[in-house]
Amino acid sequence: MSVGHDKPRRIRDPERTRERLLQAAFREVYRYGFQSAGIDAILAATNVTKGALYHHFESKEALGCAIIEEVIATFPRDRWLLPLQRSQDKDPIDALISVVRGIPARPSDIRGGCPLVNLAQEMSQLDEQFRKRLAKIFGGWQEGVAQTLRRGQYQGSVRRDLVAEETASFLIAMVEGYEVLAKNAQDPKVWHLGIRNIVGWLNSLRAPRRSRRRGPGLMSKGRAVQQRRRFRRRRN
Amino acid sequence: MSVGHDKPRRIRDPERTRERLLQAAFREVYRYGFQSAGIDAILAATNVTKGALYHHFESKEALGCAIIEEVIATFPRDRWLLPLQRSQDKDPIDALISVVRGIPARPSDIRGGCPLVNLAQEMSQLDEQFRKRLAKIFGGWQEGVAQTLRRGQYQGSVRRDLVAEETASFLIAMVEGYEVLAKNAQDPKVWHLGIRNIVGWLNSLRAPRRSRRRGPGLMSKGRAVQQRRRFRRRRN
Repeated sequence: MSVGHDKPRRIRDPERTRERLLQAAFREVYRYGFQSAGIDAILAATNVTKGALYHHFESKEALGCAIIEEVIATFPRDRWLLPLQRSQDKDPIDALISVVRGIPARPSDIRGGCPLVNLAQEMSQLDEQFRKRLAKIFGGWQEGVAQTLRRGQYQGSVRRDLVAEETASFLIAMVEGYEVLAKNAQDPKVWHLGIRNIVGWLNSLRAPRRSRRRGPGLMSKGRAVQQRRRFRRRRN
Repeated sequence: MSVGHDKPRRIRDPERTRERLLQAAFREVYRYGFQSAGIDAILAATNVTKGALYHHFESKEALGCAIIEEVIATFPRDRWLLPLQRSQDKDPIDALISVVRGIPARPSDIRGGCPLVNLAQEMSQLDEQFRKRLAKIFGGWQEGVAQTLRRGQYQGSVRRDLVAEETASFLIAMVEGYEVLAKNAQDPKVWHLGIRNIVGWLNSLRAPRRSRRRGPGLMSKGRAVQQRRRFRRRRN
């Protein structure tokens, strides 16, 4: 801001500082968990003062909530929801298979596991604020997958005896379960085996050819509403 | 030990003290994770001195290893491996279904989640000793389920196109995935929905009736060996 200075000075950019703190905090939490994440380690990684950190995030808890909403929430959105929205012209099962195959499986991803599962496992029992925010992410993820399945049911390419929400939660459980196994094995092969199994299961959701030939529109809006009611009843 | 004392004294029982420490440490780790588990909280819960704790467990790490091997390892063994061994006269898929339905789902189980997943998620990247011990538990669990499936394949009641080890790891991923979702939801309904989905999937592993009628012995030992080789090749 100060113009006419001889020495070059670092220009203050509060937004950038906040973003750097957020990313460093995410990396620290991703590795050690929220409770063991060190504020000092985050400050050292960013070269920011404690005062500046607490200016941007009033507490460690507030920093944790920002990590969930601004970093972790982007993973299901960018890897699942946006690609599924963009492939409305594709066969829904093909779209889901391509999303599952596209989940990053670099050695660092396998080592660290799924950030959403890490934090959900650690904090769901301990902090209701965290739990609810993470549950919202799981809920949005499930709804995006369920919408894709419903589109397939409407078009006749996905089995109509399935309850879309239930099947979506089953897919998410499979993906998260294999993330757990692969992280414990610290071995991408476990993850690749998982993808193959999940893809095989996804293929089993396709409608048999005969009912597919009958074409779209066979599941009426009334049938879909009925199915969702059945799902809600079963949960309650 | 001192006899002839007037005042009644607590008799020292090192084995019992060790067991009480272990159980209290397990509960503390189950709730807060290993890194955040407080030694002081464990001492307070057991009324044991720090010296006595370090007499039984030379470090916090040694205590963690004992928790894995003496407490956590009992869960897959008591809930999966022993019941499966005891039901050799039962249809293997029925046996697996009954094991899945028998997984405890008390509110406290749902709140705390699966102790094996909790610790594997937290520590697999951070501590190679812990990771290997936990991987051994997952491995034994997988092998027990795979044996059950192979028995079914041999008898003709389980589909022979399945690779038993792969299918076993898929089942474990589903179970652990739903444990994660139910813990995040803090809601047993999510778990019950999971059981229903997993049972449906287990039913899909049954051999079609025709091949079942051909009776046992159709999968030769050679075929079984071939299949296991195929599994190993795929992993490598």
